Amino acid sequence: MPPRTLKVTIAYDGSAYAGWQRQANAQSIQAVIEDEIAVIVGAHNPLVAAGRTDSGVHAAAQVASITIDHPIPCDELLRALNARLKAGDIRIRSIEDTFDRFDARIYAKTKTYRYAIWNGPAPSPFLRHVMWHVPAALDLDGMAAAAKALVGEHDFAAFQGRGSDVKTTVRRLISVELREVDINTDQPVALPPLPTDPSRASGRLLRLEVTGTGFLRHMVRTIAGTLVDIGRGQMQVGDMAAIVASRDRARAGQTAPPHGLMLWTVTY
Amino acid sequence: MPPRTLKVTIAYDGSAYAGWQRQANAQSIQAVIEDEIAVIVGAHNPLVAAGRTDSGVHAAAQVASITIDHPIPCDELLRALNARLKAGDIRIRSIEDTFDRFDARIYAKTKTYRYAIWNGPAPSPFLRHVMWHVPAALDLDGMAAAAKALVGEHDFAAFQGRGSDVKTTVRRLISVELREVDINTDQPVALPPLPTDPSRASGRLLRLEVTGTGFLRHMVRTIAGTLVDIGRGQMQVGDMAAIVASRDRARAGQTAPPHGLMLWTVTY
Repeated sequence: MPPRTLKVTIAYDGSAYAGWQRQANAQSIQAVIEDEIAVIVGAHNPLVAAGRTDSGVHAAAQVASITIDHPIPCDELLRALNARLKAGDIRIRSIEDTFDRFDARIYAKTKTYRYAIWNGPAPSPFLRHVMWHVPAALDLDGMAAAAKALVGEHDFAAFQGRGSDVKTTVRRLISVELREVDINTDQPVALPPLPTDPSRASGRLLRLEVTGTGFLRHMVRTIAGTLVDIGRGQMQVGDMAAIVASRDRARAGQTAPPHGLMLWTVTY
Repeated sequence: MPPRTLKVTIAYDGSAYAGWQRQANAQSIQAVIEDEIAVIVGAHNPLVAAGRTDSGVHAAAQVASITIDHPIPCDELLRALNARLKAGDIRIRSIEDTFDRFDARIYAKTKTYRYAIWNGPAPSPFLRHVMWHVPAALDLDGMAAAAKALVGEHDFAAFQGRGSDVKTTVRRLISVELREVDINTDQPVALPPLPTDPSRASGRLLRLEVTGTGFLRHMVRTIAGTLVDIGRGQMQVGDMAAIVASRDRARAGQTAPPHGLMLWTVTY
């Protein structure tokens, strides 16, 4: 039986995990899935993700690769794996056979992240774990304009978190968009409008969507935090280009919290 | 300073609580809110809810009444209270002054509950705490037809949970509707469709909405459980009227789990 390489697409609520990567003293997404696959196929093999998400960060369609030496059909592995992932905060969305040399990290062409900001007095109890709550008034137009300065190939050293040692901090962002989106009422997590509280008054949901060919550690969270600092008037719209040019982390804004961030899609 | 009666509208994720009602050895929604109001106004007063929700049950717009002897403006109390409710799973949506004799339970005209069923192989990790996951194939048309037999004034003894001692088990349901609803993709909790996984194949969201003038303990959950038993073919569509007429709890179906249930609105 020759080994097979699988492409695995995964959604997870990262709230209870110390991030994607296996660690000695904390539960990780990688360890939980690898261990359950090992039980099913009878051997432990490494599961490589397109992008390692930090502690508390979510994924809607993370992609990972794994080589196994077992004939189980993909559909059957999908069902068995989801049945074993009983906490329900990790869901395997699809499993496909792919070519032998496939590596989910190396072969990824683009990654898209979404960052959700709830701008209002208090967020929904049902969405609080996937949104950053910012009660201060925000200048959305200014933030959206500042975001445009990030598009293209730049040295993003000013947006890199501590504790990283990559060879180059040059990355290419294909699109950076910030806009207000609707919370549709046709959802179990929505709240009905109150007579005394027109839905607009209760807050608005802002979504930052960033697509790029590669990202530095904490890059999207630092972009989100800097945009909020601009929206609050603590920095100016025109500062964004200068912050990028400075290559100085101290010039950029705060690092937004992890729970507002979601790895949305990966393309190959 | 004469005492004032307040009408308080509250949303909560009930996952971490032993229900609405204050209890000796477990955390309750009522106790948390009462205790925080007491800190703000300097005296402890009872908070009466329109409907006591069970352990793990949610509310989008629960209504409660409380009498306080303090001049704090409603807007200020709203802000102070939400600021103190740091876990974020309880959100005070509005506070209004109302007439002295107002009692949120006694004056409630109708209550609407929603019960969410995820019918598919595996639910979203981001919505799992607000949906009952039913993987079995369900006959939605049959379930919707059976639901109609519940509308009107009936003795609902067959749908009452154990441990209740109400005077009468006659209740009036104004509407009972079961239908498939969309999970809108314009939400942070949605998942992007996969090329290999057309969104329909991944499951559907069914919503039971029940409006009535009064409810028995576990009544909506027993209705939801019985409808699912009918949808799976374990009972027949035509059985529903006979189950109601029997007044026998053993004739009705399973009690659906609490986390799919949400008190949606209360009218006065």
